[in-house]
Amino acid sequence: MFVVGIGPGDPRHRTVYAVEALVKSSVIAGYGPYVDAVADLTEGKELIVTGMKGEVERCRRALSRSVRGDIVSLISSGDSGVYGMAGLAIEIAANDAIDVDIEIVPGMTTALAAAAELGAPLANDFAVVSLSDLLTPREVVMKRIAAAGQADLVVAIYNPMSSRRRSQFPEAIRILRQYRDPETPCGIVTAAGTKDSVRVFTRLHDIERHDITMRSIVVVGDSRTETLAGRMVARRGYRL
Amino acid sequence: MFVVGIGPGDPRHRTVYAVEALVKSSVIAGYGPYVDAVADLTEGKELIVTGMKGEVERCRRALSRSVRGDIVSLISSGDSGVYGMAGLAIEIAANDAIDVDIEIVPGMTTALAAAAELGAPLANDFAVVSLSDLLTPREVVMKRIAAAGQADLVVAIYNPMSSRRRSQFPEAIRILRQYRDPETPCGIVTAAGTKDSVRVFTRLHDIERHDITMRSIVVVGDSRTETLAGRMVARRGYRL
Repeated sequence: MFVVGIGPGDPRHRTVYAVEALVKSSVIAGYGPYVDAVADLTEGKELIVTGMKGEVERCRRALSRSVRGDIVSLISSGDSGVYGMAGLAIEIAANDAIDVDIEIVPGMTTALAAAAELGAPLANDFAVVSLSDLLTPREVVMKRIAAAGQADLVVAIYNPMSSRRRSQFPEAIRILRQYRDPETPCGIVTAAGTKDSVRVFTRLHDIERHDITMRSIVVVGDSRTETLAGRMVARRGYRL
Repeated sequence: MFVVGIGPGDPRHRTVYAVEALVKSSVIAGYGPYVDAVADLTEGKELIVTGMKGEVERCRRALSRSVRGDIVSLISSGDSGVYGMAGLAIEIAANDAIDVDIEIVPGMTTALAAAAELGAPLANDFAVVSLSDLLTPREVVMKRIAAAGQADLVVAIYNPMSSRRRSQFPEAIRILRQYRDPETPCGIVTAAGTKDSVRVFTRLHDIERHDITMRSIVVVGDSRTETLAGRMVARRGYRL
């Protein structure tokens, strides 16, 4: 079974390896919108489509098809290894004692596509933190935000807000403001790496005035981050 | 001018976008081994090859060719945005007042390929830190390592060691041991995402016994990281 990162959505962000895995497979399993995003590669294949939060079920169904001898691609958006299905597939196979060869096909995680659209905000050391508290307790998440703030790490924030989850993002920004200049450049990219991508350049003190959704990636700069020619760049310190 | 992340080396990790940019370009600029890695795509094109630490010169030469009207790809291994040339290109163009359209083409950064070879060690929040002190002072680097340790972040370490730089890695491991169980699963992948890739699974207390080079990526797990079916997985906490 392949666990495939299909990239953020735009076909041009797919890797050769991901395309090969999908082409080889006879069964494609994934969350509906991700399966739709690879529709050009799945004609004639069997689709296993499950809803949001259906990760465990989706994974078990994919594994059981693989046990039966089908070549299966279980897909994630972005990278299958970053907040994706790769870990869960290995966990379930180990837990259920399923003897299947699992091949992890990495992909472009959405933060990298967002960063390219903003400029080069991840050019230096950085932290990747999701504000979702579905699986990680909120206090652990905020401790990570504080650590990144204190150590002057650029922070790429996944899942900053949803319709249900509104208070985590303001709390994270409050924490980062304790460590960072209010003028620190920040970027918001919503639907990064898709044709609907919208990017916003802002500053730490002003970031909450902007629309932020489940599909946004927020990047908060470090002390060396600057706005150069209208883009966000984490300067590395080269002498020019 | 395109600033292109060509991925870690193996052509299958290239994105469609990167291949398109290289094919469109008439001039390819890069560090020798990276230009070699895309030799299959550069036949008949002009190559600008510079040595290690020639980043600023390479970038200026690429920009000047672009000003003259050539389509130029300035390449980085991995992602052009992560320890790559994207930021420098924007910086130099702004500094030298060069009016060129710079398009950042992101790529698979080597840590993601390394993670896929290890299992799914970056499935949760993580920090990316380079131990090189060429551009970032050593004390800042170690503060970042300590913050990651204290906040229970998985750490992906770039440039852990070189022939010249031997003491940073032991210091980083000493710091991480203050916060993390000696049995914490760790992975080392040398030449990740290339055909010469070698992976090692180890534990925090034992990691210094292994060969680590400039081309290694080291991943140190968080408190939820486990070895499952011979792979390294940062468990996210799903109920199976």
